[in-house]
Amino acid sequence: MNQLQLFNNIVKKRSFLCVGLDSEIEKIPSFLKKLKDPVFEFNKRIIETTQEFTVAYKPNVAFYESLGSEGWKSLDATVKYIKKKYPDIFVIADAKRGDIGNTSRMYAKAFLENMPFDAVTIAPYMGEDSVAPFLSVKDKWAVLLALTSNKGADDFQYHNEDGIMLFERVLSLSQRWGNVDNLMYVVGATRAEMLIQIRKLVPDHFLLVPGVGAQGGSLKDVAKYGMNSKCGLLVNSSRAIIFADNTSDFAITASQKAEEVKMEMENYLFQSKLI
Amino acid sequence: MNQLQLFNNIVKKRSFLCVGLDSEIEKIPSFLKKLKDPVFEFNKRIIETTQEFTVAYKPNVAFYESLGSEGWKSLDATVKYIKKKYPDIFVIADAKRGDIGNTSRMYAKAFLENMPFDAVTIAPYMGEDSVAPFLSVKDKWAVLLALTSNKGADDFQYHNEDGIMLFERVLSLSQRWGNVDNLMYVVGATRAEMLIQIRKLVPDHFLLVPGVGAQGGSLKDVAKYGMNSKCGLLVNSSRAIIFADNTSDFAITASQKAEEVKMEMENYLFQSKLI
Repeated sequence: MNQLQLFNNIVKKRSFLCVGLDSEIEKIPSFLKKLKDPVFEFNKRIIETTQEFTVAYKPNVAFYESLGSEGWKSLDATVKYIKKKYPDIFVIADAKRGDIGNTSRMYAKAFLENMPFDAVTIAPYMGEDSVAPFLSVKDKWAVLLALTSNKGADDFQYHNEDGIMLFERVLSLSQRWGNVDNLMYVVGATRAEMLIQIRKLVPDHFLLVPGVGAQGGSLKDVAKYGMNSKCGLLVNSSRAIIFADNTSDFAITASQKAEEVKMEMENYLFQSKLI
Repeated sequence: MNQLQLFNNIVKKRSFLCVGLDSEIEKIPSFLKKLKDPVFEFNKRIIETTQEFTVAYKPNVAFYESLGSEGWKSLDATVKYIKKKYPDIFVIADAKRGDIGNTSRMYAKAFLENMPFDAVTIAPYMGEDSVAPFLSVKDKWAVLLALTSNKGADDFQYHNEDGIMLFERVLSLSQRWGNVDNLMYVVGATRAEMLIQIRKLVPDHFLLVPGVGAQGGSLKDVAKYGMNSKCGLLVNSSRAIIFADNTSDFAITASQKAEEVKMEMENYLFQSKLI
C-alpha cells in the first residue's frame, strides 16, 4: 500500500482511526476463554464490528509474545484474517524492533514477508542500517519512533544538540532513508502541541499517533496541529475501544466506541475540506 | 543471578565468553534439517561442545521470530535446555525490546517469567518506564543499549548536548533506575577505544560487548580498556564460533573456536590478577 491508497481509504471510510489490538488475555471476556484460540476469537469479533469505522489495526506484539508460540499463532491468524477479508485495511505490527542490519532483516522477514503486515514500528536508536531492511520490502512501511506518548519520552528524546532535539534529528535524518510511501513516524497524542514543530520537519509524511483514549491525548488537538493535505494521520485507540465492555456485548460496545471516534474524525476531515 | 555470582562463574571458567546463538536456519548444516526441530538440535550440539568455555549464551531472537511460532518453540526449548542442564550459565534474550510501561511488562513476562532467560537487551529510546518492568523482576537483568557496534550507531548515539553524548546520557541516567546486580550495558567492540570514557561513567557495571569476530572488534582492546575488578565484561562472538564450519564436524569446530577465545580471555584475566 502506498500513501495515496492509504489516503483514499481514509476518504472512503471518512475516518483515520487505527484500532490497537492490545488483546491482553486477562482482559478478554471470560466466555471466549473456552474457545481454542481466545485471543484470535476476541480479535475477530472486534474486527467484524469495528472495521466499518477503521482504516488500520495495530496488534501490540508484546501481548502476543507473552503467550509464547501460541500467541504467535494468534498474531499470525489475526493479520491473515484482516488482510484476506479486508485487504484495504492497513495493519501495523507494533513491535518496536531494530537491530544491526542482518538482524533487522530477519525481523522484516518475520513481519512483512512471513506475515502480511503492512508496517512495523521501529526504535531508531541504532540508526540507518537498523531501519533500512524494513524500507526495502516493496509496498511495506517502517514506522519510526520519534516522540512517544509515555513519560519516559522526556529522558532522551529531547536531548538537545545546538537547538536540535533527538526526535527532530530522527525526523530529519531518516527522511533520507525512505520516502512518504514507505516511512511514517510515531508521535504521541499526549504531545499534540509538538505537532506544529514536527509538521515543519515532516510536512508530508503520515504520522501514527497513539495516546488518544486511555492515555489522555486530545483528538481535536492532534487533528488541528497534525493534519495535512492527505490527512497524514493514523490515530490509534486501543483499550478505550476494545476493552470498553467485558460482557458478551463487548464487540457491539467496541463498535459504538469506534463509531464515536469516527464521527469526530469525519468532522475534522470535513473541516479540512478533505471529504 | 547477581553480579558476584556472574563474576564467580567467570573465575571458575577462566572465560568471559558469551556465545551468540544467531542460529539462522539457512546456515545450519543440512543433515540437521531432517530432524524435527533443526534449530534446537543445532543449538543443543553447539551448547554441549562450547559450554566448557562459556559463561553466557545469547540467542538472537530475530532469527527465531523469522520462523514464526515454530521459531518460538526452538527459542523456548533452547533456553530451557541451557538453564536446566547448566543453571550457572547466564542466558540473554537479544531482543532489543522497549515500549511504554504496560507493554514492556508483557515483554518482561515473555522472556523473564514464561521463559527462564536471565536478561533481555533493551533499546533505551523510550526512557525509564520502558526499562523499569525488566528491572523489577527478581534476580533478572536488563541489558541496555548504550553504544552499539554497527555503522548506524553514528546517527544518533553521539548526539551531543553540552558535551554529553546521547549514549553517555543513557549510561548516567539509567544508573538511577537499576544497580550493578540488575543492569548492564551494550558497548560494541568496534568502539573499544570508547571504553575508557565509558568506564568513567560506569566503573562497576557489567558490559555486554558484541562485535568481536565477524564484525572485526579487538578482544585485546576490549579487555585492556573495559575490564574492571569483577571482570565486568561479557564478550560475545556469534558467527565466528557457531558457523565456523558447516560440515558434520561443526560442533567440534565451534568448540575449538570457543576454546581459542577462552585461552585469550584467560590470559587477560591472569594479567589483571583476577584469576
